Amino acid sequence: MTNDITMELAPLFNPRSVAVIGASNNWSKWGFSTFTSVLNGFKGKVYPVNKSEEIVVGRRAYKTILDVPDDEPVDLAIFVIPAPAIPKVMEDCVKKGVKAGVIISAGFAETGKEGRKLQDEVLRIAQRGNLRFIGPNCMGYYSASSNLRAFMFPIPILSGPIGFVTQGGNVGGAVVGAATNRNIGFHRYISCGCTADIQIEEYIECFGDDPEIKIILAYIEGLNDGERFVEKVSKVTKKKPVIALKPGRTTAAAEAILSHSGAIAGSSDIWDSAFKKAGVIRAESPDELLDIAVGFLTQPLPGGKNVAIMTPGGSYGVLCADACASLGLNVVKLSDETIATFDKIFPPRWSHGNPVDPAGDRNFTAYLKAPEMLLKLDEVDSLIFMGFDGFSSFPSLVSSMNHKFSRMFKKMLTPLIGIEKVKKKDSSSDGASQTSRINKFIHSLLFIFFSVFGTSKKEEVEDFARQLTSLITSEFVDPSILYTFSQLVNVADLNDIDDQMVERLLDSFQPLLEALIIKWMHEHKKPIITTNFTEEPTSLKGGTFYSFSSGKKAALVLSKLVEYSEYLKRG
Amino acid sequence: MTNDITMELAPLFNPRSVAVIGASNNWSKWGFSTFTSVLNGFKGKVYPVNKSEEIVVGRRAYKTILDVPDDEPVDLAIFVIPAPAIPKVMEDCVKKGVKAGVIISAGFAETGKEGRKLQDEVLRIAQRGNLRFIGPNCMGYYSASSNLRAFMFPIPILSGPIGFVTQGGNVGGAVVGAATNRNIGFHRYISCGCTADIQIEEYIECFGDDPEIKIILAYIEGLNDGERFVEKVSKVTKKKPVIALKPGRTTAAAEAILSHSGAIAGSSDIWDSAFKKAGVIRAESPDELLDIAVGFLTQPLPGGKNVAIMTPGGSYGVLCADACASLGLNVVKLSDETIATFDKIFPPRWSHGNPVDPAGDRNFTAYLKAPEMLLKLDEVDSLIFMGFDGFSSFPSLVSSMNHKFSRMFKKMLTPLIGIEKVKKKDSSSDGASQTSRINKFIHSLLFIFFSVFGTSKKEEVEDFARQLTSLITSEFVDPSILYTFSQLVNVADLNDIDDQMVERLLDSFQPLLEALIIKWMHEHKKPIITTNFTEEPTSLKGGTFYSFSSGKKAALVLSKLVEYSEYLKRG
Repeated sequence: MTNDITMELAPLFNPRSVAVIGASNNWSKWGFSTFTSVLNGFKGKVYPVNKSEEIVVGRRAYKTILDVPDDEPVDLAIFVIPAPAIPKVMEDCVKKGVKAGVIISAGFAETGKEGRKLQDEVLRIAQRGNLRFIGPNCMGYYSASSNLRAFMFPIPILSGPIGFVTQGGNVGGAVVGAATNRNIGFHRYISCGCTADIQIEEYIECFGDDPEIKIILAYIEGLNDGERFVEKVSKVTKKKPVIALKPGRTTAAAEAILSHSGAIAGSSDIWDSAFKKAGVIRAESPDELLDIAVGFLTQPLPGGKNVAIMTPGGSYGVLCADACASLGLNVVKLSDETIATFDKIFPPRWSHGNPVDPAGDRNFTAYLKAPEMLLKLDEVDSLIFMGFDGFSSFPSLVSSMNHKFSRMFKKMLTPLIGIEKVKKKDSSSDGASQTSRINKFIHSLLFIFFSVFGTSKKEEVEDFARQLTSLITSEFVDPSILYTFSQLVNVADLNDIDDQMVERLLDSFQPLLEALIIKWMHEHKKPIITTNFTEEPTSLKGGTFYSFSSGKKAALVLSKLVEYSEYLKRG
Repeated sequence: MTNDITMELAPLFNPRSVAVIGASNNWSKWGFSTFTSVLNGFKGKVYPVNKSEEIVVGRRAYKTILDVPDDEPVDLAIFVIPAPAIPKVMEDCVKKGVKAGVIISAGFAETGKEGRKLQDEVLRIAQRGNLRFIGPNCMGYYSASSNLRAFMFPIPILSGPIGFVTQGGNVGGAVVGAATNRNIGFHRYISCGCTADIQIEEYIECFGDDPEIKIILAYIEGLNDGERFVEKVSKVTKKKPVIALKPGRTTAAAEAILSHSGAIAGSSDIWDSAFKKAGVIRAESPDELLDIAVGFLTQPLPGGKNVAIMTPGGSYGVLCADACASLGLNVVKLSDETIATFDKIFPPRWSHGNPVDPAGDRNFTAYLKAPEMLLKLDEVDSLIFMGFDGFSSFPSLVSSMNHKFSRMFKKMLTPLIGIEKVKKKDSSSDGASQTSRINKFIHSLLFIFFSVFGTSKKEEVEDFARQLTSLITSEFVDPSILYTFSQLVNVADLNDIDDQMVERLLDSFQPLLEALIIKWMHEHKKPIITTNFTEEPTSLKGGTFYSFSSGKKAALVLSKLVEYSEYLKRG
């Protein structure tokens, strides 16, 4: 069932035509950068409105919106003119039949009594004309469905499954920038400013209806009607997760909020209980907001709070266990029976508990066997798999070794020279021969990989090769990987193998191992949160794989998945 | 006064020669990677010791260390052999006159009773021979003064002013990796493992003596003698800051610690009070450890806890003020007098308080005037200057604009075409003419910059140009910047100006503005902590400039500077 609000906001998100009121040729004005931002992508008609210029950035300009010919309707107006001029222009927009607006201009409620009066006046005019608007005092918005970037200056943004409303343009911009950097996209992004007309809960309600939106994010400084928020948002959170960043735990912040968005911050405890009631998940910083979003995008919901931790090093495990327990997760105790099964694959010095730490064992196949053993246990609801996304760090290790080592390493690639070229999935060849060729190829690669990075028994390597071979023709792997492999080894002699190729060869294992994780996740229907060795945020791959930069972040994300899962269970 | 410990550990940090016991040709052994790690950089003699091989990685190997000729002394032994073999080999080392060691091998106290017995035996033998050693169960160590990388596998590490001891090799490796990524280096880095012989407080004592070390970092799971730690470390913290990460707030972590390093975690409250007594600053995560270190490396100590915040956007300011107040800093209230002075440079919509937010004003010279106005106030002890390090994000904005805009932007560069080439500081030219040429050049650049990114009055731009001109010939700027500028504009016509040049031109302002910050910091002797728009960690520049990725991090770092400053004042 679609709510009224979705119908009402349709002209905002899918306008046929747009007027930029205050569009300018003057580079130093927001009216210039807003206009060029809209031009960059929107396919409908765009009208510059400017009192004094005839042409704006090469387009015919209109003195007022009423000068746009009657047979050319304007669905949306973007206001980038001084606040005092807006009531009159809003009247014109209503006359013209404009259905939606965004007021970027500042100088309203956030400046005090006079500003609030002006804001109320603008609101009355718009309401009389059934014109719904974003703002004032905002940075604009993005709608993927119409490729509209109605921003006060162009910011890079990707299309994707997130709906995001923010009361702070800068915080919003920082989150969008970080998301772009992580290859995460938005279906709607709204800098809502002073929320004179459309309220935060209305955006969220509308996002709740939209099948393109999977996750909803919000940065909230204050609300006009807390009860209405709880009532509307609690319906949305039954369908999809809503994650909110709400500053204002301190008086200093409350004062800053008042002067920024003109909102009353309210006590943080009240917010906590309102969020709890509405099923909203609270984040404490912009990067937490994004981390939690990625968690929900890539993971199934856990059945409970029992977590197992796999770590390549003791201290990683210590920090992660500490973070998990602090956040109310249960670092599950392993049974004697389980410990006995790990005794069979790990050396005697392994940690004999959870976190599972093989303590520097170099048997890589055992390290990749252990996660499945844990996932199969009924008492384990989720797995944090640490230090996993680190294969891309091996090349730098290789190149940091001395020259002699580097040469020896290349020599190890000799068995791959002249290997039969494996082509991209070829319908003309029969399945059996293809599988055998792939198996041979993977086997050669694994042989090299394990000689350098781990000792494994021959039958274990073969078993692992079979696993990867079956994976490579499964739904979890992009078949183009075969082509990449064959390209890599299509060399005539040793001298053709350079550092770059060694790097690419090692890197090429990463997607295969990622696919393995995704496969486990699908089979066991439990979250598997991976972490890497670096503090830099990584990229979301294929919309399904993401690796966090620390056990602490993994623990946080998992705790929020548990929180939401428990909320849904309570019904 | 140098402590005994510094004399005792001299052979560890500056050995003339090194034996790697267990050095191997077998790629899958730690003995191989450890040996190649040592070979990579260390200039003294390196002896591989291997029971069965004659040659290891091209070097003559010895069956035991006693087979090394008598007239060739060995200062340091690195052990990469199974634990049970170590007592006998340690005996040999003592006989040979080895003075220091590092036992990388695991299988000691961390594995239980038997392991502890073995560890005690090794310790007795070493002590009888006055051989001091790191470990066991560690990842090795780095000494910049002898360029020695005694690691179990090569990790990239830079030379620099930090002394770091870690009880967790993986956490240590992650911190070192992140530091390298941020261009931060170490004078000593020690993975200390089970600390059978040399204790954490001894490393810290030794770091305290070393004039090359400015900041001391530690990751601690447990201590053998807490009182001794407090006694020794409290002497060091009078001289330089010691920052420690200590996990184990939860039972889950305490259990993980026991199985990892064999240490007793102890209650977190006891740690808090011990750290407080010793003047140790506590960090809560690896990235906090590094953030705080960078803070101490680049900032003077604040006189008190009154902070002013400059922000380019309201919500940034809200989050930062919230973080500051939560951490006990005082977001200082501005006097009416101060507010009146800001009224003169900002539009009426500015925040009228702290955080100081010009609310989207595009007058860039005003934005750069405000920090000095705040720094001059007696009631302000420090400044958080937000969204400063963001000029490198402008190029991506430019290129994301449509083609038409891009062409117009290039046209604006026309005044710079054919401008007189400014050479690197040239002693033959007289000072006055040089200054005039620089001024002309800077002025042209500023004209372009402000036309695009802000409106400023002509006299303000000229005033600002004079400031930058005087800066450019000061100690705060690398004079090569002039050469960069002249290269950038040494083009014959408009077609030579491509996107890359526009990017470099905008980027070239960044070092000038950084120098301005450093100059203010020197003049006012107050911390100025800058933040940028991205969540990626940035690089330490010239050892003096660093920009944090959020107001939250800036607040944390500042709170620790205040904590240390107050500790020193208490005396």
